[in-house]
Amino acid sequence: MTKQGRQGMFISFEGGDGAGKSTQIHELTEYLRQMGYEVVLTREPGGTPISEAVRGILLDPQNKAMDAVTETLLYAAARAQLVAEVIRPAVNAGRIVICDRFLDSSIAYQAFGRDLGDMVGEINRYGVGDCMPDLTIYLRVDPKAGKARIQGRAADRIESEPDAFHQKVFEGYEEICRRDPARVCAVDAGRGIEEIAEEIRAEVMKRIHEI
Amino acid sequence: MTKQGRQGMFISFEGGDGAGKSTQIHELTEYLRQMGYEVVLTREPGGTPISEAVRGILLDPQNKAMDAVTETLLYAAARAQLVAEVIRPAVNAGRIVICDRFLDSSIAYQAFGRDLGDMVGEINRYGVGDCMPDLTIYLRVDPKAGKARIQGRAADRIESEPDAFHQKVFEGYEEICRRDPARVCAVDAGRGIEEIAEEIRAEVMKRIHEI
Repeated sequence: MTKQGRQGMFISFEGGDGAGKSTQIHELTEYLRQMGYEVVLTREPGGTPISEAVRGILLDPQNKAMDAVTETLLYAAARAQLVAEVIRPAVNAGRIVICDRFLDSSIAYQAFGRDLGDMVGEINRYGVGDCMPDLTIYLRVDPKAGKARIQGRAADRIESEPDAFHQKVFEGYEEICRRDPARVCAVDAGRGIEEIAEEIRAEVMKRIHEI
Repeated sequence: MTKQGRQGMFISFEGGDGAGKSTQIHELTEYLRQMGYEVVLTREPGGTPISEAVRGILLDPQNKAMDAVTETLLYAAARAQLVAEVIRPAVNAGRIVICDRFLDSSIAYQAFGRDLGDMVGEINRYGVGDCMPDLTIYLRVDPKAGKARIQGRAADRIESEPDAFHQKVFEGYEEICRRDPARVCAVDAGRGIEEIAEEIRAEVMKRIHEI
């Protein structure tokens, strides 16, 4: 891809809570913008007014009665709107889209964490279609270490789940890495910020030059 | 079914906007309660705190940018929660559940109205499962006559759709009647309230005695 290329790129960041996604997304975005790339930064669930309203329902700690299928459908709805309104148009316009979480989060949290299995991918295929990330940076962190990192901040409904849930989510991410090694790049998130940022930059630039 | 029977009953009401569903649901509920039946009255989208929050997003006239797949997923999410939290437990406890709209609305409005076809049924099967109505009362009204009846009240996002959309919804309902005549009872809604109520009562009591 050249900076003037018509073909954009879609990068997602994945990982358990406390993996340091926000920090690394910020680092990469700044770097790419300094290099002259047009970067569209977004997040899940959210990124459009409709998807942010759905996010409010999903993360509200009051909504303890939420059924696992309802949860899956709400994440899929927020994602479908984000794809239609933001990601697909930006990639088609030649921009680099960086998204904080995407479909892999539903596979890890609902298919594995909630034990829903294949239905999660099936529910999501209508809204996602072929709009899958070109590259997924998976920040690998042990669930206990991740939990320690987010101590002290108010936990949302998903973060408040018990340790056994977060362990299943971790195993889900590991399975995703095994299934799709060409797309998913696992990065050891237990190191210093700059060291991790360097590895991610190198991986992204390699992919950009390949396109 | 006896009044003391353990096996409940699930009745849905369907029809285009302005068909008079609210009035007829009220009539039937009052009648069944006077007969000594325990009736649980609910509506779609809504009927639980989570589903009502989703309803707010779906019907907000501001949300003009909503993608058709997003819309389908949000209706399915609200429905999944209603089934899990209200309908299934009530039917299992031997009650009569009357629901203002159910899955047929998604088939008529999204599969037909939005031209999404089979994906609508597929998205909904995880949340609905075998929890389908035992009887569906379809209040048949010509879309133009229905529109005239709701003149003067503030239209929500779906009601505000153009006439061509409501015509496709009407044709969708007619197709549902042809596909599932054992479950769906079409009632001519262009008559007086009491005449319609009488026909619905007779149909419901016939089904109750059959169980």
